[in-house]
Amino acid sequence: MLELYHAGLTTCSKKVRLCLAEKGLDYRSHFLDLRKFEHHGPEYLAINPNGVVPALVHDGEPVLESMLINEYLDTVFPTPPLRPTNPLELARMRLWTKLADNYGLAAVVPNTWAFYQPVIAKLSPQEYERMIARVPTDERREQWKKASDNSFTQDDHQKAVDAAKRIVSKIEAGIGEGPWLMGAAYTLADIDLLPYVDRIATYFPDILGPGSKTPRTEAWLERMRGRPAVKSTYAPSVDAPASVVPVAATASATA
Amino acid sequence: MLELYHAGLTTCSKKVRLCLAEKGLDYRSHFLDLRKFEHHGPEYLAINPNGVVPALVHDGEPVLESMLINEYLDTVFPTPPLRPTNPLELARMRLWTKLADNYGLAAVVPNTWAFYQPVIAKLSPQEYERMIARVPTDERREQWKKASDNSFTQDDHQKAVDAAKRIVSKIEAGIGEGPWLMGAAYTLADIDLLPYVDRIATYFPDILGPGSKTPRTEAWLERMRGRPAVKSTYAPSVDAPASVVPVAATASATA
Repeated sequence: MLELYHAGLTTCSKKVRLCLAEKGLDYRSHFLDLRKFEHHGPEYLAINPNGVVPALVHDGEPVLESMLINEYLDTVFPTPPLRPTNPLELARMRLWTKLADNYGLAAVVPNTWAFYQPVIAKLSPQEYERMIARVPTDERREQWKKASDNSFTQDDHQKAVDAAKRIVSKIEAGIGEGPWLMGAAYTLADIDLLPYVDRIATYFPDILGPGSKTPRTEAWLERMRGRPAVKSTYAPSVDAPASVVPVAATASATA
Repeated sequence: MLELYHAGLTTCSKKVRLCLAEKGLDYRSHFLDLRKFEHHGPEYLAINPNGVVPALVHDGEPVLESMLINEYLDTVFPTPPLRPTNPLELARMRLWTKLADNYGLAAVVPNTWAFYQPVIAKLSPQEYERMIARVPTDERREQWKKASDNSFTQDDHQKAVDAAKRIVSKIEAGIGEGPWLMGAAYTLADIDLLPYVDRIATYFPDILGPGSKTPRTEAWLERMRGRPAVKSTYAPSVDAPASVVPVAATASATA
């Protein structure tokens, strides 16, 4: 049995849900409410000690990190295939998934994490201290602190802009005739990059949008948005408890 | 034919040379002198537009990014195998190579790049401007600027310490009975992490060294250093022109 621990809001969760959707795989959904910090609780940390979503559990065994989860899914459930079989093509496809892995989150962090500020503002000082204390890594604790008072620096914002530009310029230069990043074959390259590119188009219309001289990337994004699996992954999530849908909908409408 | 574009000094070059050595593969060596900025020249940029070493060229086709190069080598030259065949074990091995890829360079950047300061100091203003202008990415240009006046910030140094701690704590907690990171099997996990852990032991003896409560990581590092392929990879390089050996030797003696 496949179980997915995820949060509808996050880019990394969408990355894995899109892969599952493209393969038509059923799974038991465990929705974690990030605004209640459920991903820092002992139950989830037993599955993923890093305290980040998503995590896949397959027949009781955890598989971590969205990029690796998607490759695992393609290995164990090979139909339809989402990776080239030629080793050279495979290495090139992985340049794309590595690009998403290395720069995707950096591109969206300051804008996305700002949404947690009003949630954290409602905590009492004691609740805030308890929340921060449970974050399992220094790196993430730093981000939660910045989210709490929206204190992302000019440097953080510049890094986000640089990361967004890097992703879009690589796609614009590398997609060739398309229609997909690896040419005729639709692969994990497309799946892993979509959630970040989708947000970049919203956060940074000057980097990706009308007049930004990125017609190939825009056309690819439109083709992606037309896929049934993408539509279902991006629909107001049936995986999310009803209570979280309004916030998710707000976030995706404005961010 | 295999061709490797590399620089003996750098961790990422060692990562790939160690994989080649473990497999006993011959290759034509193209040594790039980073202190002459040869990796920013048009000839190399035609192979790797990112202007970083190493790059593998196999029968004329470039393969980029050390982590992906090593997986490519293991696919195309499967003897001896350096990855588990079980999909779950493979996903777990890749958590280690991803750890090396995400945090390895961050752990060593401020200390390693400081070695370029005296090289850059010898350039005329015109030569400096020309050097900086040829760096193909914003990210790397920023690092060359910081290397030029050794202006790595307290934040850069803290990030290096955090990355070094993250790597060592993951190994200490995850290696179990060993002898290798994946247990009985020696894999790309060991190969990809070695160059960073080796430097961490030199740069940060309080994180990895006697009295640092990291006995498992220290024992693993000693076992690694005992391997013939590691010894040959870390020997004063026969791949490097004689002129660069003294600096390389100085760098590895003090860093």
